[in-house]
Amino acid sequence: MGQKIKVGVIGAGRIGKLHTENLVAHFPMVQVKSVADPFADKVRDWAEGLGIQVLTDNYKDIINDAEIDAVLVCSSTDTHADISIEAAKAGKHIFCEKPVDLTVAKINEAVEAVKEAGVKFQVGFNRRFDHNFKKVREVVKEGKIGEVQIVKITSRDPEPPPAQYVQVSGGIFLDMTIHDFDMARYLSGSEVEEVYVTGAVLVDPAIGEAGDIDTAIISLKFENGAIGVIDNSRKAAYGYDQRVEVFGSKGKVLVSNDTDTSAIVSTADGVFSDKPKYFFLERYQGSFIEEMKDFFEAIIEDKKPPVVAIDGLKPVLIALAAKKSLVEGRPVTLKEIEKENF
Amino acid sequence: MGQKIKVGVIGAGRIGKLHTENLVAHFPMVQVKSVADPFADKVRDWAEGLGIQVLTDNYKDIINDAEIDAVLVCSSTDTHADISIEAAKAGKHIFCEKPVDLTVAKINEAVEAVKEAGVKFQVGFNRRFDHNFKKVREVVKEGKIGEVQIVKITSRDPEPPPAQYVQVSGGIFLDMTIHDFDMARYLSGSEVEEVYVTGAVLVDPAIGEAGDIDTAIISLKFENGAIGVIDNSRKAAYGYDQRVEVFGSKGKVLVSNDTDTSAIVSTADGVFSDKPKYFFLERYQGSFIEEMKDFFEAIIEDKKPPVVAIDGLKPVLIALAAKKSLVEGRPVTLKEIEKENF
Amino acid sequence: MGQKIKVGVIGAGRIGKLHTENLVAHFPMVQVKSVADPFADKVRDWAEGLGIQVLTDNYKDIINDAEIDAVLVCSSTDTHADISIEAAKAGKHIFCEKPVDLTVAKINEAVEAVKEAGVKFQVGFNRRFDHNFKKVREVVKEGKIGEVQIVKITSRDPEPPPAQYVQVSGGIFLDMTIHDFDMARYLSGSEVEEVYVTGAVLVDPAIGEAGDIDTAIISLKFENGAIGVIDNSRKAAYGYDQRVEVFGSKGKVLVSNDTDTSAIVSTADGVFSDKPKYFFLERYQGSFIEEMKDFFEAIIEDKKPPVVAIDGLKPVLIALAAKKSLVEGRPVTLKEIEKENF
Amino acid sequence: MGQKIKVGVIGAGRIGKLHTENLVAHFPMVQVKSVADPFADKVRDWAEGLGIQVLTDNYKDIINDAEIDAVLVCSSTDTHADISIEAAKAGKHIFCEKPVDLTVAKINEAVEAVKEAGVKFQVGFNRRFDHNFKKVREVVKEGKIGEVQIVKITSRDPEPPPAQYVQVSGGIFLDMTIHDFDMARYLSGSEVEEVYVTGAVLVDPAIGEAGDIDTAIISLKFENGAIGVIDNSRKAAYGYDQRVEVFGSKGKVLVSNDTDTSAIVSTADGVFSDKPKYFFLERYQGSFIEEMKDFFEAIIEDKKPPVVAIDGLKPVLIALAAKKSLVEGRPVTLKEIEKENF
Repeated sequence: MGQKIKVGVIGAGRIGKLHTENLVAHFPMVQVKSVADPFADKVRDWAEGLGIQVLTDNYKDIINDAEIDAVLVCSSTDTHADISIEAAKAGKHIFCEKPVDLTVAKINEAVEAVKEAGVKFQVGFNRRFDHNFKKVREVVKEGKIGEVQIVKITSRDPEPPPAQYVQVSGGIFLDMTIHDFDMARYLSGSEVEEVYVTGAVLVDPAIGEAGDIDTAIISLKFENGAIGVIDNSRKAAYGYDQRVEVFGSKGKVLVSNDTDTSAIVSTADGVFSDKPKYFFLERYQGSFIEEMKDFFEAIIEDKKPPVVAIDGLKPVLIALAAKKSLVEGRPVTLKEIEKENF
Repeated sequence: MGQKIKVGVIGAGRIGKLHTENLVAHFPMVQVKSVADPFADKVRDWAEGLGIQVLTDNYKDIINDAEIDAVLVCSSTDTHADISIEAAKAGKHIFCEKPVDLTVAKINEAVEAVKEAGVKFQVGFNRRFDHNFKKVREVVKEGKIGEVQIVKITSRDPEPPPAQYVQVSGGIFLDMTIHDFDMARYLSGSEVEEVYVTGAVLVDPAIGEAGDIDTAIISLKFENGAIGVIDNSRKAAYGYDQRVEVFGSKGKVLVSNDTDTSAIVSTADGVFSDKPKYFFLERYQGSFIEEMKDFFEAIIEDKKPPVVAIDGLKPVLIALAAKKSLVEGRPVTLKEIEKENF
Repeated sequence: MGQKIKVGVIGAGRIGKLHTENLVAHFPMVQVKSVADPFADKVRDWAEGLGIQVLTDNYKDIINDAEIDAVLVCSSTDTHADISIEAAKAGKHIFCEKPVDLTVAKINEAVEAVKEAGVKFQVGFNRRFDHNFKKVREVVKEGKIGEVQIVKITSRDPEPPPAQYVQVSGGIFLDMTIHDFDMARYLSGSEVEEVYVTGAVLVDPAIGEAGDIDTAIISLKFENGAIGVIDNSRKAAYGYDQRVEVFGSKGKVLVSNDTDTSAIVSTADGVFSDKPKYFFLERYQGSFIEEMKDFFEAIIEDKKPPVVAIDGLKPVLIALAAKKSLVEGRPVTLKEIEKENF
Repeated sequence: MGQKIKVGVIGAGRIGKLHTENLVAHFPMVQVKSVADPFADKVRDWAEGLGIQVLTDNYKDIINDAEIDAVLVCSSTDTHADISIEAAKAGKHIFCEKPVDLTVAKINEAVEAVKEAGVKFQVGFNRRFDHNFKKVREVVKEGKIGEVQIVKITSRDPEPPPAQYVQVSGGIFLDMTIHDFDMARYLSGSEVEEVYVTGAVLVDPAIGEAGDIDTAIISLKFENGAIGVIDNSRKAAYGYDQRVEVFGSKGKVLVSNDTDTSAIVSTADGVFSDKPKYFFLERYQGSFIEEMKDFFEAIIEDKKPPVVAIDGLKPVLIALAAKKSLVEGRPVTLKEIEKENF
């Protein structure tokens, strides 16, 4: 198998830990050499259990380690771009969690740095690697449903985030819907051209007071002529609701929620089946492994990663258009947002 | 059982025939005495087979027949209101096919005439009587899913109408979506307040040339704070697609398409199941009987019919708002439409 | 339409009433002229409401009425054969409820009488006309699943009959499973050759005391080499469970229960859907109409009815084999039963 | 984490490799130190890739290695018992693939050796650890469906084994149905008391010539009064069919096949969904990991393993009863088999 690829993980929060564990368990050709986290002590036991050689509270130790081939940027959102730029300059391949940044300028800076350094740069839109959504994309791509006409995405969380998180998250569009914007592009195979938002605060007044909404219907126009709609809620009582449907000139394809089991229980009280898998860690478990597979394959075979820099930028632009649409109560074109940001 | 209720059917096209046959087959307390149709000769055999006593090409023969207790107005849309007014003045109870008219003024005129005459007036929004949608409404009404937050309606036809029909139909919103607008009011238990349309011509360029669209996503705001979305296509390759979903603070309820059988065939080629029932006559077969049941019950027990005059007016107002939204590329409030029309 | 076919209904219990109502509602070319029932007074209002001309407590009034073209034999099981024989001798076409009789000798006598008279004779195995099971038969017949290898039938009632009925019914096999034996023949397109029963009394000890069982697994061997299994229970807490599956060399086809609606309700408590339609009147509603359609079509077009005398006999033979298998704890061939009975 | 548990894998065929890979990927507290296989050279690259220290063609190298704490016996069936006995004598904990042996005497010998040595002994009935079947068992155990009355198991393979394998496998009951016999015990929570087989050769005449059958319906009586049925086919054209249903006094629970995705594609040609996951490696992927989890948990926490020696013996007894029933064409009790074998 030759030399292992040496990896540094920057940020050992929920998602950083998840990636690290997946690499240890499923990627014999990868060695997670180092983990950096500002609260390194809190994760010491966890890191040792996994046989991580280096644990540091300074991510620069990873950037400056000549042995490290690739980094996973799993730190807080506001540091994604800067750390990616440093990593690029140090010649590391980069897997960067989404969103790359909340501002277009920063994203572009990162994109430039990556281009200049000639390193791989993959953005963590893991849902593209979900078994269900990947299948939908394949069905669309193979032309089985003809020309895409309507894209429908349902995306509802089981629980709203704490109101204080809402304030730093950039709002529902940059925090939550951003995955759906990526999905809209991925499934349609086209760029979003215009956005119109119908929003409401129905889950938690505190979210409204924080200047955000928690329930939304987002209409989309695509460049290829198709139209689409995303519906979001911060709280679905029955759990994480993640479904998509693509309708085309020759038919439709839809996928429903994953469940833990296929059990159906019938009693005098009714017919019961499983609720959806609890939240993204459970539902998208497989997708986190698949995206790593593709990232390291891109490195090993010197291929283009499946989710590149532009894929990190576009959903942010759509989110900004959505934000503006909500505030101004009118459809907003991506052109308008691009003009404002370049 | 006492005296039978004597009914005259005005207009023996597809829907007029359907109601007549249902009354003969399922309503022993009703006698369809007369049928009027401008092309009476064409339906003579059919009428005789059903034992209809009077067949005429002049609907006034029905209006003027003192024995007739109730009329079904199944003539062409542009005559619905005028005939209803005449029937009301003659003291007949009226079941009027949708839409009552394409203009608000005419509808109001009919509503006034009905009120004055004190006769029953039911509008033919049959989908409210569909087993699936009725169940959704019940679940919502019983509070099982809490406060309504999102209403989703998918409504796609198996085949577009001929382009020449499109021109006289008043356009997709007054012809096709009008059922969905009624459904949105029915399911949410609230009035629509604002409409925004994202439309496209993706099915048939001739429809576009006739000044209409064939594919639409229609965002809705309701007075009770809920939001909603309808998606329409004039042509679903796999057949008539009629699904709804209501999402609320405590859960969701959704219904899928009806099929002829529950058969699932598994072979080396895959797993196959039935397509949806072909079109509205098949899918809504039961609903046409149920709405008659309620209409005659309202007459016999002197109750309010389940779909009254205001229910005939509101969807037309929403359709006009949708039309304006499409033309002007902005959300349009119902208030605005009402102001223009009163 | 010419002259109406005049019908006499013998026996106005649940099933006799049902057929009468269906004929009145859906068969314009049929006139139910007479109804006979030993307790005629009890059904007088019902009969008058339907416009039945003659109501009698003596079925011979129907047999002797020269105007009557066809009779429906819906009386108690022990009279089916004798009345059919009388009707045949009087030249009436006969629709006879199942089973024709509980003894082979009587059935044969009836079959002979029918043959001699040259009248139509259809047995009321209505499930063959159920939309789901008919589709399964079609799929099998069209060869879509290849050669039949395994036939599986699940048939469970929502409630056991009163123990006193159990005693006169001839036992579970002649009363309940007889439909499944017919289904096994129908779906496989082959005759049953051997039966083995595993039975138990798990629902109601009183059924055991009456000498019957209430729970059974019945293995079948077919002449064409296929094998099969029926599972029965007299009481399914969740309702009437009627499913079949046919497995063949190229695949399988299965059908599940019908429900009132397709509604799925998801809440914090789980995901709920409808229970099966309540019992045979609800589930097989359509089939009762379809079997009449075929019966009168056979009369009008002078065709062979779809369920003929042999179809009345064979399930009784299988039931007798099952009974013997249960008592003797061994597989019993149909040959053995035939030898005993001819 | 302390010292790792050192494991030797005996037999590196399909299942031995699978367990080894799972241990490497998912069990940080376990070290697969050694692998033994008669054709060690063939698996050298594979073993090195996984960092296995010792690869040998003599399983005794593992038995004699004092460092080894536990062995996985994945060799050919005829060696399971003897190797287990040797391992027990050497004080190793044992995970033994099913069946422990094809003869009762040998199994008992192994059981004795294990008891004497006081080591853990778990049998590889992995399906008990399948997410679906485990859920069924839980529902039954929690009493949600009341007293168990009927157990139904469908188990069909996608492809028959080569006829030459059939001859050494001990026949369909010991090779294939043995899993279903285990499932019947597991789901019912009771012992099988009597077996009756209806068998046929419908898939491949060569299987019949080898003295075996390829299609079977197996009726079961349980000690707790419940009854059951297993249906088997060696070849389901649509793939691996693995479903169970348990019916009880208060309801039923059933599970259907797993699929790769939930995608439903609707076109003019019909409505298509995924076939079942291909075969046992795909369908039971998770169960192989879960059974290891429980095995090592039993070692670490010194608990009773979830599938013990008696669970290795009982299904073999049932299989022998089934074999006899097929040959003699009569129901066979387990008592009879036990008497013959002790």
